[in-house]
Amino acid sequence: MFLYLEDSSKFAFSRRESFKEFLSSQDGEAFGMLGIPFDSTATYMPGARFGPSAIREASYNFEGYNLTFNRELKAPIFDLGDVSVVAGDFKETSKRIIDTLTRLLSHDLKPLILGGEHTITYPILKTIQSRDNPTIIHFDAHMDMRDHYNGKFTHATVMRRVYELEPQDIIMIGVRSASREEIEFVKEHEIEYYTSQMIQENIEEVTSKLRSIKDPVYVTVDMDVLDPSHAPMVGNPTPCGLTPFHMEKFIETISRKDIMGVDIVEVTSPVKGDQTGLNAAKILHDLLSLKS
Amino acid sequence: MFLYLEDSSKFAFSRRESFKEFLSSQDGEAFGMLGIPFDSTATYMPGARFGPSAIREASYNFEGYNLTFNRELKAPIFDLGDVSVVAGDFKETSKRIIDTLTRLLSHDLKPLILGGEHTITYPILKTIQSRDNPTIIHFDAHMDMRDHYNGKFTHATVMRRVYELEPQDIIMIGVRSASREEIEFVKEHEIEYYTSQMIQENIEEVTSKLRSIKDPVYVTVDMDVLDPSHAPMVGNPTPCGLTPFHMEKFIETISRKDIMGVDIVEVTSPVKGDQTGLNAAKILHDLLSLKS
Amino acid sequence: MFLYLEDSSKFAFSRRESFKEFLSSQDGEAFGMLGIPFDSTATYMPGARFGPSAIREASYNFEGYNLTFNRELKAPIFDLGDVSVVAGDFKETSKRIIDTLTRLLSHDLKPLILGGEHTITYPILKTIQSRDNPTIIHFDAHMDMRDHYNGKFTHATVMRRVYELEPQDIIMIGVRSASREEIEFVKEHEIEYYTSQMIQENIEEVTSKLRSIKDPVYVTVDMDVLDPSHAPMVGNPTPCGLTPFHMEKFIETISRKDIMGVDIVEVTSPVKGDQTGLNAAKILHDLLSLKS
Amino acid sequence: MFLYLEDSSKFAFSRRESFKEFLSSQDGEAFGMLGIPFDSTATYMPGARFGPSAIREASYNFEGYNLTFNRELKAPIFDLGDVSVVAGDFKETSKRIIDTLTRLLSHDLKPLILGGEHTITYPILKTIQSRDNPTIIHFDAHMDMRDHYNGKFTHATVMRRVYELEPQDIIMIGVRSASREEIEFVKEHEIEYYTSQMIQENIEEVTSKLRSIKDPVYVTVDMDVLDPSHAPMVGNPTPCGLTPFHMEKFIETISRKDIMGVDIVEVTSPVKGDQTGLNAAKILHDLLSLKS
Amino acid sequence: MFLYLEDSSKFAFSRRESFKEFLSSQDGEAFGMLGIPFDSTATYMPGARFGPSAIREASYNFEGYNLTFNRELKAPIFDLGDVSVVAGDFKETSKRIIDTLTRLLSHDLKPLILGGEHTITYPILKTIQSRDNPTIIHFDAHMDMRDHYNGKFTHATVMRRVYELEPQDIIMIGVRSASREEIEFVKEHEIEYYTSQMIQENIEEVTSKLRSIKDPVYVTVDMDVLDPSHAPMVGNPTPCGLTPFHMEKFIETISRKDIMGVDIVEVTSPVKGDQTGLNAAKILHDLLSLKS
Amino acid sequence: MFLYLEDSSKFAFSRRESFKEFLSSQDGEAFGMLGIPFDSTATYMPGARFGPSAIREASYNFEGYNLTFNRELKAPIFDLGDVSVVAGDFKETSKRIIDTLTRLLSHDLKPLILGGEHTITYPILKTIQSRDNPTIIHFDAHMDMRDHYNGKFTHATVMRRVYELEPQDIIMIGVRSASREEIEFVKEHEIEYYTSQMIQENIEEVTSKLRSIKDPVYVTVDMDVLDPSHAPMVGNPTPCGLTPFHMEKFIETISRKDIMGVDIVEVTSPVKGDQTGLNAAKILHDLLSLKS
Ligand SMILES: [Mn+2]
Ligand SMILES: [Mn+2]
Ligand SMILES: [Mn+2]
Ligand SMILES: [Mn+2]
Ligand SMILES: [Mn+2]
Ligand SMILES: [Mn+2]
Ligand SMILES: [Mn+2]
Ligand SMILES: [Mn+2]
Ligand SMILES: [Mn+2]
Ligand SMILES: [Mn+2]
Ligand SMILES: [Mn+2]
Ligand SMILES: [Mn+2]
Repeated sequence: MFLYLEDSSKFAFSRRESFKEFLSSQDGEAFGMLGIPFDSTATYMPGARFGPSAIREASYNFEGYNLTFNRELKAPIFDLGDVSVVAGDFKETSKRIIDTLTRLLSHDLKPLILGGEHTITYPILKTIQSRDNPTIIHFDAHMDMRDHYNGKFTHATVMRRVYELEPQDIIMIGVRSASREEIEFVKEHEIEYYTSQMIQENIEEVTSKLRSIKDPVYVTVDMDVLDPSHAPMVGNPTPCGLTPFHMEKFIETISRKDIMGVDIVEVTSPVKGDQTGLNAAKILHDLLSLKS
Repeated sequence: MFLYLEDSSKFAFSRRESFKEFLSSQDGEAFGMLGIPFDSTATYMPGARFGPSAIREASYNFEGYNLTFNRELKAPIFDLGDVSVVAGDFKETSKRIIDTLTRLLSHDLKPLILGGEHTITYPILKTIQSRDNPTIIHFDAHMDMRDHYNGKFTHATVMRRVYELEPQDIIMIGVRSASREEIEFVKEHEIEYYTSQMIQENIEEVTSKLRSIKDPVYVTVDMDVLDPSHAPMVGNPTPCGLTPFHMEKFIETISRKDIMGVDIVEVTSPVKGDQTGLNAAKILHDLLSLKS
Repeated sequence: MFLYLEDSSKFAFSRRESFKEFLSSQDGEAFGMLGIPFDSTATYMPGARFGPSAIREASYNFEGYNLTFNRELKAPIFDLGDVSVVAGDFKETSKRIIDTLTRLLSHDLKPLILGGEHTITYPILKTIQSRDNPTIIHFDAHMDMRDHYNGKFTHATVMRRVYELEPQDIIMIGVRSASREEIEFVKEHEIEYYTSQMIQENIEEVTSKLRSIKDPVYVTVDMDVLDPSHAPMVGNPTPCGLTPFHMEKFIETISRKDIMGVDIVEVTSPVKGDQTGLNAAKILHDLLSLKS
Repeated sequence: MFLYLEDSSKFAFSRRESFKEFLSSQDGEAFGMLGIPFDSTATYMPGARFGPSAIREASYNFEGYNLTFNRELKAPIFDLGDVSVVAGDFKETSKRIIDTLTRLLSHDLKPLILGGEHTITYPILKTIQSRDNPTIIHFDAHMDMRDHYNGKFTHATVMRRVYELEPQDIIMIGVRSASREEIEFVKEHEIEYYTSQMIQENIEEVTSKLRSIKDPVYVTVDMDVLDPSHAPMVGNPTPCGLTPFHMEKFIETISRKDIMGVDIVEVTSPVKGDQTGLNAAKILHDLLSLKS
Repeated sequence: MFLYLEDSSKFAFSRRESFKEFLSSQDGEAFGMLGIPFDSTATYMPGARFGPSAIREASYNFEGYNLTFNRELKAPIFDLGDVSVVAGDFKETSKRIIDTLTRLLSHDLKPLILGGEHTITYPILKTIQSRDNPTIIHFDAHMDMRDHYNGKFTHATVMRRVYELEPQDIIMIGVRSASREEIEFVKEHEIEYYTSQMIQENIEEVTSKLRSIKDPVYVTVDMDVLDPSHAPMVGNPTPCGLTPFHMEKFIETISRKDIMGVDIVEVTSPVKGDQTGLNAAKILHDLLSLKS
Repeated sequence: MFLYLEDSSKFAFSRRESFKEFLSSQDGEAFGMLGIPFDSTATYMPGARFGPSAIREASYNFEGYNLTFNRELKAPIFDLGDVSVVAGDFKETSKRIIDTLTRLLSHDLKPLILGGEHTITYPILKTIQSRDNPTIIHFDAHMDMRDHYNGKFTHATVMRRVYELEPQDIIMIGVRSASREEIEFVKEHEIEYYTSQMIQENIEEVTSKLRSIKDPVYVTVDMDVLDPSHAPMVGNPTPCGLTPFHMEKFIETISRKDIMGVDIVEVTSPVKGDQTGLNAAKILHDLLSLKS
């Protein structure tokens, strides 16, 4: 009706029609995008609340066609907006995430989550785990495997809580910072991890590992997995990280898996055009092109 | 259906339901908000394309209740998104603005426009003028009354083009910069203007003038009317401007008029939280509270 | 021993010797400065964790002599560092604030607190109230009087919680934003407030009120009481605020009272030299000069 | 006459004398530098108008001697200032570029152009093509080969328009973003392109191709060819780009060719010291050292 | 010859022809503009080296006509570029300033100096004093009257050194920060000063004083005289400063005097469009319009 | 006594007790950290005065455990604060550095110096040279080997002055900018240097050289040795620099040497969280872990 209107605050490649109409007329799957602007347990740089809008804005700098993978991005995506989080109250926020995500899954929408802090991955996986028992592919500069750090539920303990959900497996990629407690826990429980230094030397070892993991998978991307030169605006920028080229290769490999959901967290950019948002949007763009 | 979802990219006080459903069930009027992120003729600082998102984001820092005027903001507002503009092509952009606005007016929605450069006020008023013949209340550091400046349709000529539409009247508030050509034109055609220096001395002269003008009115606010200390991110920041206290008084007076539409232009903030967007959002907040 | 060493991260006018040695050799009082970098319930702009360092850094731009009040800043101040807060856990943070402050009071040090979010004022006053029953002088753009907002203990409810501590009195200065619930509560309980608009018109009414209040007093300064042009980096920048000239006059009046403590909260500047920190430091500088 | 005066707004290595005097006393060639601060068709980040001053300012951080190539920068360069562009009017701007460049070529000055948006390359090459029929070496993240995008003359169509001028050849380096239309056009017309991914794997293939191309050449550098980590301030920052090391090697190879002109476009830095301007200045510094 | 060329790095209102040709064909006086980007003794915020380019860039946002004073800016101004300063060596820099200024004065060009730190006012006045014995009108938040502060020649001692040159008189406007030593010196030597607080109350006292002072005058403007809300980027931003309205009135009064020279110092903006540069450019714009 | 207090302005891994008590109860060595915020001879970007606080702040983003090297950071470090420098007066500053460092060495504390400009390395090495005659390992984009550049003691001449102290040897790593004078001097005196281009090709050549140098060593790190993508905020950002991965390898090798002292200079970040400070802190973190 309104010829020239557009909602530039939704993800650039999302459908503008109702997802109910879409789903009733189609077979197959669609993606449901949710922003979760929660950042109350950040310990170094705050601002992950800006992540959802930063990533959506950045998506407008990408083409419908993906030259690298020679694919048109046609995957049906519905950008549902943001979960209404409660600053300072992870418990209530967690409940809301679980309720919203449960509803989303009931519509056969696969979650694409834009954080917010990494802490939110726990309620997400708590919801998904009960259905899918996925292998968790965890991109991060950190292990996030502490048992306790400023409480039980923070960005530094989230993967420990996820581990307690007993997922099929966890594999960590890009790690370069951990406490002794974490490294011991990970070794004791035979959780595989690949440091950024290893990847720098021999990326093939990781892509080959990724090819071998069992379906289904869930992908959680803490954007601090990238080097600060590529992702300066994150909660805990950590030197010696991965490059977007590394991520391109990993995403290509992962796209062949049966993916239950994806989250991209810890983007803190308050300024339009910042490359942290761009690199986060590119990860989604690549994955969604490859899934098209 | 989705309990905890919100679309934080729409204006904070806009209705989330369909405006068609709303209008069918109500008497009276509603407002239709449009962003117009066009900024191709900017000559000093670029970025007015960021205006619509800056003002919407800033609106989330305001309360539903307006303490200053002791009013609840209840006016029905529908945020329709942005007009899809064509960078570098004002002619085509202008056509799209006119088409979209015509449709909006046909639904009895009163336009609330978020610019973009001031240039967009011409197609807006071209659409409105044919119906309403309003008095134009023009807040600006500049007269924008040149006949030609980088062409016929730019931020520096827009009020000359508007004048040629023969509106009931034009009144300029907050002016402090002009060319000799402009001042001569304005004097010759007896267009009233009030400099910021005059307002600083005696604001009553202007509010009294505003009270006396004939209905209906259209309000165009170039945010550079404020002092750069209050609106640093605009296309042409100009010292010795008005304060938000001045605007509060003017808006209070204007709110008693029959307002055909409002535009707020020239906000260029790319950073969340910048006060230029806050002050623009406050002008809307005050006006809409007073109209509630 | 080390001739040329300095600790430029302490407040510029703090003593470098041990406060225990100082106190044992002196009569009279001294001030104890504490940073409390807690900001987990921020709802608009995050970063109040940067407040303590921003204010301390800014203090180095001031002279030992205060030209405005013709006084040398000689009040004995001990900058004790920051309370180790727990991001995301106000309950534990609150406990630590109370424990630390209790100890500080036991040494006859008067608290000078650098926030952090306004939320921290509750545990501070809980500690002080039991001893001193002060009149609370509350500088803020907001009432912070909601009963509930994202929980019971947030920057938007803090003065309601403080009210429940039954202090001698509360007086609010610079208010310009509130919910209807707050305004009704405040009126019902006869809590006096002065809007920034009233102050703009007639500051004498407030200074005269301030002169009349009963000792002792506690002063809490939410830096958003200043206009965003003077304090752009705060959690909730709100147009039409006070100027540093207004604060200068209020501080002069307040300095004649028996002050039990001061907090200055909501500074979010991550950049050195930002005027929000400068204006916060000036408030302390003026007060401490006048108390010298 | 004035001993200690300098004009730090000209390119650091430009001659300060009159180019007419210089040329009359010398054999051989000289370079004429022009800024073209036009950016009206920018679609993502605005500000290419700041490019000319950003690159000139950055040139002051380089030495007269070039350690990498063991050469003194002695090439005679005359920085003639900026073309007076018309914001919003590419047609008039284009005419001015052509007139100015024609004059410059008539003095045997080889153009060194500082953009501005990439759109300006069309009038530049329209002027040059009629004389020199060069091979175009096109560094860019994008193909800029659309037939139409917001009109016929924009940063996204410029190389299509250049192709229509029928230059000897076009070779594209660093591409990683295109529409399906562009990739099909390029393949159909056998325009060679090298993606950044190919270059990452095997730069030798490109340098060897560059060595084989036919003289004369024209070089157009869209600074978004670099990765956003090296050129964050450009109109369309695109992940997975080249590094300055890659550019160093390409420039070394190209310097052996007969170069008819160079443009460096899309730098949008408004802040002094930003690395986008530095990397642009380095490309010029390397090329001019190698041509000395 | 080159139709459309412009040198946007010179002051917007400066003549583009040779000042020698101009002077030979004219009677009367002309202004010579010099940048002096020296900032080695800055103690709080560095960057006054960016002052000259910040002020020149900002001048492009002003009109040839001055609406406030109803005057066309026609005064002949020659922008001669920057003095080549020596970072870290005030002695040598001082010598160069004196040599350059001496030459400038020998051509009957009146100096318009763009700092740089306030320290540069000493060599300027040393040169001028010997000829003109002016009354010094000193706008500043500080007295700069220490005898010694990090040495004899720094921004904090410059007016003491100037005092030792025995100028006709010194009058200080906008002061709000001083050491006890300075205040005592100033009182002992009967140097008049007007604090910003006094001016806030009664500006007429100062304009009337200014009217009464004896010709000729020299005007030195430390941009920190403005409030940080109007001049955030200066070496020592100091709360409770003047507004651009105050400066407008002072400049109007001063323009009736016989002015030997002007310097505007301490602008530290590295970002284009910052209001500190704008307000500095406005002071020059007003003065030069009034002198036209 | 104060349970929850912390001094977050000291280096994160420094001891909070008195170093005298510590040393009396221990054998072996400890490190003494000093900030030297001197930056008066900076020629391009100012702000190295912010280096000490930027690096200390960044240290809080690191773990006590170092995953890369599998080591706990246990080395005893005492952060003594900053040397009180004199802006604009290198001679006096130099004297204070020498006096302070002499005292520090007398307590068997090994210096860890946070600059400040590179110029400060001269007084540091003048103090150390007389005792230890170390091999100087010099990380820098520049040679800093001019005999004279804005005087005898500046960031561009510092290594020439150091050479004149006749240290055992100097080895330069990461160089990519020099004047012809410098390259000739270095070749004539057989000072070895490794350009970043060489390192990019073959890092082993440098690590092997580093292994072969004679003890003891002193390490001076000009942070511009890193590429501007990793260290954007330095005095002279220079393209084509090293990566943090390169530094990791060099530090690992150097850690096996007998290190007499370290300085890390030229960080100019005024904004918290900037990666320049992070990469500087990482160098210290790696070295101190490896020395634990
Ligand atoms: Mn992480
Ligand atoms: Mn994480
Ligand atoms: Mn305007
Ligand atoms: Mn306008
Ligand atoms: Mn508040
Ligand atoms: Mn508050
Ligand atoms: Mn491009
Ligand atoms: Mn391009
Ligand atoms: Mn000053
Ligand atoms: Mn001064
Ligand atoms: Mn260097
Ligand atoms: Mn160096």
